Amino acid sequence: MNAHTWTQNLRVGPGFRLADVDPDATPGYDHGKSRGREDLAAGLERLNDLQERLFAQSRVGTAQDAVLLVLQAMDSAGKGGIVRHVVGGVDPQGVALAAFKAPTEEERRHDFLWRVEKRLPEPGFIGVFDRSHYEDVLIGRVRQLADAAEIERRYDAITAFEERVAASGVRIVKVMLHISPEEQKARLMERLERPDKHWKYNPGDVDERMLWPQYMQAYQTVFDRTSTDAAPWYVVPANAKWYARLAVQELLLAALQDIDPQWPVADFDVEAEKRRLAAS
Amino acid sequence: MNAHTWTQNLRVGPGFRLADVDPDATPGYDHGKSRGREDLAAGLERLNDLQERLFAQSRVGTAQDAVLLVLQAMDSAGKGGIVRHVVGGVDPQGVALAAFKAPTEEERRHDFLWRVEKRLPEPGFIGVFDRSHYEDVLIGRVRQLADAAEIERRYDAITAFEERVAASGVRIVKVMLHISPEEQKARLMERLERPDKHWKYNPGDVDERMLWPQYMQAYQTVFDRTSTDAAPWYVVPANAKWYARLAVQELLLAALQDIDPQWPVADFDVEAEKRRLAAS
Repeated sequence: MNAHTWTQNLRVGPGFRLADVDPDATPGYDHGKSRGREDLAAGLERLNDLQERLFAQSRVGTAQDAVLLVLQAMDSAGKGGIVRHVVGGVDPQGVALAAFKAPTEEERRHDFLWRVEKRLPEPGFIGVFDRSHYEDVLIGRVRQLADAAEIERRYDAITAFEERVAASGVRIVKVMLHISPEEQKARLMERLERPDKHWKYNPGDVDERMLWPQYMQAYQTVFDRTSTDAAPWYVVPANAKWYARLAVQELLLAALQDIDPQWPVADFDVEAEKRRLAAS
Repeated sequence: MNAHTWTQNLRVGPGFRLADVDPDATPGYDHGKSRGREDLAAGLERLNDLQERLFAQSRVGTAQDAVLLVLQAMDSAGKGGIVRHVVGGVDPQGVALAAFKAPTEEERRHDFLWRVEKRLPEPGFIGVFDRSHYEDVLIGRVRQLADAAEIERRYDAITAFEERVAASGVRIVKVMLHISPEEQKARLMERLERPDKHWKYNPGDVDERMLWPQYMQAYQTVFDRTSTDAAPWYVVPANAKWYARLAVQELLLAALQDIDPQWPVADFDVEAEKRRLAAS
C-alpha cells in the first residue's frame, strides 16, 4: 500500500489508543471544508478511472483483485453518507454492497463468519460492508450475546479469516468512523426534530449510546487484536463529515492504486474485427 | 400509472410495430440535448427524494412496494449508461442491481425463471435487471437454444410470472433501448479504435449483429405477447443517449409517483425520546 498517502496518519498501529483520537480533528489534511469538497470531486474522477479499469478486468475474466471496505461506527457517525457520497460516485455495476443487520435465525445456526464469506466481493469489484463480522465482537461483547470464551475465540478467527481473504487478492480496508458522544447527541436530536428523519431514529439508539464507554473499550480491543498488515484498521475522525468522506475516498484510492489495474489487452485480432464489423 | 407523463408515447400498446420506431427520434420531448441534460439533473433530485421515502419505509418495516426496471437492448445500445447515469444517481443502499449473463450449469438445471425470482427487489428497493428472463425468448429463440414449443411456453409463463410479481407490489417497467444498426456499427467501431474500450468489445457482438432482423422479429413477438397492463413495455429510441437516459428516468419517476411513498410516521413517542436523549 502506498505509504505516502496522508491517510497513513489514521492507521492503527502498535500502541494505538482510541481515547487519544480527537473526533474533531482532520489529521494529515491541511485544508478546510471548501477545499476538501473540491478535492472530493477531483478524487472521484480518479476513483472512477481506477474502478473502471478494475471492473474491465472482471468482464474479460482476468481480474484477480478486489477491494473490500469495512465500515464500522456508532449510530449516526456517517456510514450512510460514505456509501452515498463516496461509494455512490462510482459505477454501481462494479460495486457490491452488503448491509449486515442482526443475524437471521438461519445465520445464527452457522458460525458468525458464514454469512460474511458469502458476501465477499468477487474479483474486479469494490465490496462495501455496512457493519460486518465486527458486530460479533462489538455488540456481541457489550451486550454479552455470546460467552466470554466465544468472544475471545472470534478475534483469532477474524484475523485468520481476513488473512485468507487478503491472500486471495482482496485489499481489505477497515474503517471506524469516530464521532464524539456530543456530536452523536446533536445528530440524533436532529433526527427527532425532523419528521422526515424520524425513520432514521430508533429508541434503541439511546440504549446503545448509554453504553458508550463499553463500546469504546470493545473497539479498543478490536484494534489491539485485529489490526494486521493483511487487514489494517483506520480510525477516521468523523465529526466533520467532509473530512471523513475525503479520508475514506483516499483510502479507497490507495487500495486501487496498490492494485494498479491496467486496461485489459484485447484477446482478439483488433484489425480483423474492424474489417469484419465494417463489412457487417 | 400517471397517464400525463410524456413517456406514455413510448408505451407498447395494441398494434405496436417496432419497425415504425425511429431510433433517432425523441418522441414526447420537445427540447434538445442541452435542455435534456438540465432536465436530467433536475429529475435526479425528484428521483432521490422519492427513492429515499420508499427506502425509509423498508427501514421501518412498512414498505410494501418496489420498482423493477428491466433493461433489454442490442449490444452497445446504452444499458450501462442507464445504470451509471440514471440509476447511479440514487443512493446505492436502495438499489438492487442484477446483471444476467449466460446461465450457469446450475441455473440451466432449473426453469428459466428460477434465477430471476431470486433477484426480485424487496419492498422499498429499486431493482434493476441488466438483461433478464427476456433473453430466454430473444437469444433463446434466435439461436434456437430451446425448441419451439418451449419458447412458446415461455411467453405465457412470463406474463403469469410478471402478473404475480406486480400483484405483490412491484411496479414493473420494461424498457427496450432501441438503436439503429448504423449507430451500433459506429459504437462498436469506436470500441475497437480505443484500447481503453477493447474490454467492452466481444467478437460475438458482430455475430449477433449479423442476426439483426431475426432479433427485431424476436423483440416484436416479445412486445406482442408480453406487454401487459401489469408489466408494460416501453421502447425508447436510443441513438441519442441523452434522450434515452431522460426517458428512463421519467419512467422511474412515474413508477415512484404511482407508489407515492410517504415518510414513515414515528412508532415511538418523539417527545419522550427527546427527553431521554437530552438526559443521556
